[in-house]
Amino acid sequence: MQNSLSRLKEIGKEIKLLEHAMALLGWDQETYMPPKAVEERSEQLSLLQTILHRKATTTEIGDLLGELGVSEDNPEGDASLGTLDRAYVRVCFRDYTKNTKLPTELVSKLARQTSIAQSVWAEAREKSDFSRFAPHLEELLVLIKEKAECLGYEDHPYDALLDEFEPGMLTRRVKEIFDRVREELAPVIEQIASQPNVDDSILYRTYPLTLQRQFGEVVLEDMGYSMERGRLDVSAHPFTTSLGRDDVRLTTRYSEDYFNTGIFGTIHEGGHGLYELGFAEEIKENILADATSLGIHESQSRIWENIIGRSYSFWSHYFPLLQHYFPETLADVSLDQFYRAINKVEPSFIRVEADEVTYNMHIILRFELELALITGELAVDELPGAWRSLSEQLLGIRPEKDSEGVLQDIHWSMGGVGYFPTYALGNLYSAQFYSAIREQLDDYEEIISSGDLQKVLFWLREKIHRHGRVYTAEKLCEQVTGEPLDPGYFVRYIKDKYSGIYDV
Amino acid sequence: MQNSLSRLKEIGKEIKLLEHAMALLGWDQETYMPPKAVEERSEQLSLLQTILHRKATTTEIGDLLGELGVSEDNPEGDASLGTLDRAYVRVCFRDYTKNTKLPTELVSKLARQTSIAQSVWAEAREKSDFSRFAPHLEELLVLIKEKAECLGYEDHPYDALLDEFEPGMLTRRVKEIFDRVREELAPVIEQIASQPNVDDSILYRTYPLTLQRQFGEVVLEDMGYSMERGRLDVSAHPFTTSLGRDDVRLTTRYSEDYFNTGIFGTIHEGGHGLYELGFAEEIKENILADATSLGIHESQSRIWENIIGRSYSFWSHYFPLLQHYFPETLADVSLDQFYRAINKVEPSFIRVEADEVTYNMHIILRFELELALITGELAVDELPGAWRSLSEQLLGIRPEKDSEGVLQDIHWSMGGVGYFPTYALGNLYSAQFYSAIREQLDDYEEIISSGDLQKVLFWLREKIHRHGRVYTAEKLCEQVTGEPLDPGYFVRYIKDKYSGIYDV
Repeated sequence: MQNSLSRLKEIGKEIKLLEHAMALLGWDQETYMPPKAVEERSEQLSLLQTILHRKATTTEIGDLLGELGVSEDNPEGDASLGTLDRAYVRVCFRDYTKNTKLPTELVSKLARQTSIAQSVWAEAREKSDFSRFAPHLEELLVLIKEKAECLGYEDHPYDALLDEFEPGMLTRRVKEIFDRVREELAPVIEQIASQPNVDDSILYRTYPLTLQRQFGEVVLEDMGYSMERGRLDVSAHPFTTSLGRDDVRLTTRYSEDYFNTGIFGTIHEGGHGLYELGFAEEIKENILADATSLGIHESQSRIWENIIGRSYSFWSHYFPLLQHYFPETLADVSLDQFYRAINKVEPSFIRVEADEVTYNMHIILRFELELALITGELAVDELPGAWRSLSEQLLGIRPEKDSEGVLQDIHWSMGGVGYFPTYALGNLYSAQFYSAIREQLDDYEEIISSGDLQKVLFWLREKIHRHGRVYTAEKLCEQVTGEPLDPGYFVRYIKDKYSGIYDV
Repeated sequence: MQNSLSRLKEIGKEIKLLEHAMALLGWDQETYMPPKAVEERSEQLSLLQTILHRKATTTEIGDLLGELGVSEDNPEGDASLGTLDRAYVRVCFRDYTKNTKLPTELVSKLARQTSIAQSVWAEAREKSDFSRFAPHLEELLVLIKEKAECLGYEDHPYDALLDEFEPGMLTRRVKEIFDRVREELAPVIEQIASQPNVDDSILYRTYPLTLQRQFGEVVLEDMGYSMERGRLDVSAHPFTTSLGRDDVRLTTRYSEDYFNTGIFGTIHEGGHGLYELGFAEEIKENILADATSLGIHESQSRIWENIIGRSYSFWSHYFPLLQHYFPETLADVSLDQFYRAINKVEPSFIRVEADEVTYNMHIILRFELELALITGELAVDELPGAWRSLSEQLLGIRPEKDSEGVLQDIHWSMGGVGYFPTYALGNLYSAQFYSAIREQLDDYEEIISSGDLQKVLFWLREKIHRHGRVYTAEKLCEQVTGEPLDPGYFVRYIKDKYSGIYDV
């Protein structure tokens, strides 16, 4: 049995190596690749994808899992295996089953369709014309529903899609959680909207790019992100990517006349990066070395970006340094004024620019629409209208242009139905983890206000990062916080924090 | 037959795509990769190498070649194939035969041994202690000789090694060529050494790096190298690498207090890069899109670096611009003084820093020693002594430290016996091509002295670059210049040029 396990791990390691090589091709494409190279790059990626798929679906894996006693009824395999090995075979079985359930023809149809749909979407957004994108979305939805059927589900076809990004999460449960969030936060948003708003004009002053970069690097270093095992580069859309077990790179973007973009983008990606750099030595080389769910991944970026990075304690330490970096720009600004500006709440059209309070409403909107599309309650051509009215209900504002509404995100054109909920789940997890940190770390506020951020990293690493995929998100959450995901933590966090800025 | 050919080309294209993906992994490792990532990167490369090797040696290729009528006696296949297709199957047959002649065991032994030998060599050079490296070189030589036997040869085992880098070239012919070069140039070197030398102290003034970079980019652009299909980055050792048919990247290095390193490094790599960017549309996607030999490759870098880049005409155009970039450093320097400085001839220990006149002697030295090692006339422990005395004979100087002698180059530790001659062949080819350019391009001097460098590029592209591997180096040389490689061109070029600087 030890032989079967070693061989299984060998294949798993090769899968990881190929994934990392492909990640480099992707990273390079977004950062340094010369413009004319794009055509061949997609051919290179597609060849590597084929090689990877062949490796990940070889019947040898199925045979080895069989030898290890793994089956639908016994996904953790033979009882004599150690804890980590049981987790290993469970995850391996999960991946293998998913990969082999999808017919090759469907996979390549999806690849082709999403590749076309993405470029059409980009054009349609540019022209703010949903009608161009609609027929492609329609075709894609047919394939996505087919995919859900192939993957299988017990309750709702959306479960199968959700499970890709948030393993084990159910539509029913997301609905329940989101209803609670909506119910609790809608009044807060309304209350804030009825008050005179914070003045955040200082954020729109001039912040030279190189200084933003330098300041961001100082914060990353304090967080424990080391350039020995990573990099920070610039790309059109910020992302984090693993190119190796000791090579996790971040990108961000800077705007010279809007402060938030660069620094909060950097901290956000730093949070993602620290997760991927924190897997335990024992699992570092294998397929357990990955995020257990996208919700947990997002919880790591959001806890750093928002809960820590937009807190008063954090800036009580960093604001004087920031003033040192931008002496002219910030000479006349007080810490209090700055803190209020970076935490201004205001319903807006674009999800990625939304504040903490309204952000989840953007997700709830997409979740509702995705559900209706998958069940067939909503037709594709009704989508822009449905978006507008739901936006009015949830955020109190109505986008007139499709580019500020239904066309704003790339996800659907990539076939990523079921992805959006993980953003909100990430926010909710982050607040629940935050509550646990405050309970378990003495002098949390002092730690933050002295810039001793690595104490937080050590906690996160020990409790969350090191485990990778060993525990499901649900199990991890219970283990770390003593209870299942409870949106009440997020609601309380929001009410507590924003009562200091608004009358809520 | 068309089906067999298409399938063969499909496999060939996949081989190219994999090679390019691997080239990206290599490029990244030398430029932007975080230091701790090195361990996994070598695992990624080794996995891709295995996948590539499997693809390149699949018996399907042999079968397809058979279907196309290809055999030892008929390497260009069925007579009904077009010219390019005949070249295609010839090159494919050559690669396949070479790849399959080497037993997998020998290939992996060589990979392991060279990997170890490289790190030992680096250490040995650091300490200038040949005895550390000697046992590894000894083991490597056993494997290299075994490789020569597997590959086969008619006349001399060194032929088999040479053929890897300079297809079709024979030891006998190299000997003949090098004897002529030595005979003709030795007196020139002696004559120059007996005269008071040029003062090149102006090259050791301060040249700020960013300005060197900017100036280099101007020259590259004038040469016709476009950042749409390439990049220029910094690495410890300059190199050029193809990451795609429209993605050929250069690296260089800069020294703030020595002018030659940065700018001539940039032009040299630019010459290599333009070759790889110049393959004709019809062959761009397939295995013909590669250098026909390393000698021809080097001829392209050397014609730009030395023959054009160190010519009086070139600097009569660029020196005023250079003064504009470095106004303080070069205010008191005349064009004439600058021209003489960058063309100073002085025997020195280190090959990569050698001037045009003495450079080939460094190669002849290595060639003689390689031959003696392969035939067994020289034992590994006699190598440092043999190096010293040969250096004295060829260059008139005797290195005392092994780091300035036998340990200076990485090639042997990489198993690259047979590589060095291509550097000298490149110099010789470049002079012969130069003579053809002067004959065929009206007003050559005017073209250069007006900075209209792309006229030279068009000539090189039409005559040399576009053909890739369609013609062997020998055939190409005859086609371009009307005769086989003749070292007399190089000798005349040297005597002509240096009679303007020295009394020769």
